[in-house]
Amino acid sequence: MTVTKAAKSAPAADRIRRAALTLFAAKGFHGTGIRDLAEAAGLSSASLYHYMGTKEDLLLRIMRECMARLLTAGHRVVTGDPDPRSRLAGLVQVHVLSHALHPLETAVVDHELRALSPAARASVVAQRDEYEDLWRAAIEEGCASEVFRSSAPAVTRLALLEMCGGVARWYSPRGRLALTELAVHYTEIAFGALRAEPSTVDTEAARLRTGLVSEVWGGAVRR
Amino acid sequence: MTVTKAAKSAPAADRIRRAALTLFAAKGFHGTGIRDLAEAAGLSSASLYHYMGTKEDLLLRIMRECMARLLTAGHRVVTGDPDPRSRLAGLVQVHVLSHALHPLETAVVDHELRALSPAARASVVAQRDEYEDLWRAAIEEGCASEVFRSSAPAVTRLALLEMCGGVARWYSPRGRLALTELAVHYTEIAFGALRAEPSTVDTEAARLRTGLVSEVWGGAVRR
Repeated sequence: MTVTKAAKSAPAADRIRRAALTLFAAKGFHGTGIRDLAEAAGLSSASLYHYMGTKEDLLLRIMRECMARLLTAGHRVVTGDPDPRSRLAGLVQVHVLSHALHPLETAVVDHELRALSPAARASVVAQRDEYEDLWRAAIEEGCASEVFRSSAPAVTRLALLEMCGGVARWYSPRGRLALTELAVHYTEIAFGALRAEPSTVDTEAARLRTGLVSEVWGGAVRR
Repeated sequence: MTVTKAAKSAPAADRIRRAALTLFAAKGFHGTGIRDLAEAAGLSSASLYHYMGTKEDLLLRIMRECMARLLTAGHRVVTGDPDPRSRLAGLVQVHVLSHALHPLETAVVDHELRALSPAARASVVAQRDEYEDLWRAAIEEGCASEVFRSSAPAVTRLALLEMCGGVARWYSPRGRLALTELAVHYTEIAFGALRAEPSTVDTEAARLRTGLVSEVWGGAVRR
């Protein structure tokens, strides 16, 4: 991999981050050497170490940033909303849009947790648990108030998270399906899975979520 | 990784296959060296090459075998059945059970396609397309006959495949949820996603599918 002129003029930390995301996603953390990273970022191995510390430090930073973004967006869509349906809709949309627009970051979080040392892994798992608790609360409250129905809400939560995260593997923003349609369709599927009325999916809210996700992810690498 | 005594007495080809699955799943194809493979299989690098050819040959064989098993089981559950609901139920159950019981094989297929050369990749993609066509037919026919409802059947198909495959990442046969319950619950979710009646899920058929999946996977490595 070589860097483009535009990429080369970016700050070193950004170039390293972009190189790490691309290489970790394509070859895996264990398959990526320090020399590959340095070459892709247009730096020497020593400068690379100066900017990023160890390869694990870099992986951990990428993962914690990605989880922090999902958490920020997740809290934004649920805070102050008493209706479990619109909270779940918001969470589905945040998860789908984040994975559709940032497949490299999310793929690294989804696949490389095993590569971290136990202490580092625990810090990412704590973020993931906090995030999944937002989903758990929406689904459980919805079942309690009978706007949702599920014989195994915990399994449904895991199934929906995997389903929504899976868009990172197939969605292309250059394809025919617009982002808002994608977000709406996944919300309909999630509502169907929980036996809620599809008519309660708010299309305008889904459109606004693409703005929220762009804002929260800010300057992060997009595919 | 070291081999156990029992594993060491297994034929060399089986030991190599098991070592490759474990290492590819844990460290990725690019992160696994020939020397790691030889050591894990209890062989010299030269013997390893004698048995398996290149590392890519080994990866391709694992992927083609896994896809062939999914195809065999998929054809078995749909052939001769005119009802798109019971066909989709069978496909969901085969996919969920295969991923729950064989997370290493399925993880390698799901994540390492990019590691193959174009010709090798095309041969696995052709198998995957044939498999996904079974899903496509069941969903489209169900929508046409109005036992299913979806505003975007192709997106629903991809969403359900990702959802069902995702069990490889979280399911443990040592957990509280029995395999048949898992298969039934995923079928209910899939039916909900397609707005079909959950009462049409046949629990006894799901139980029989665990037998089918065990038979089709035969002596393959289980977790």
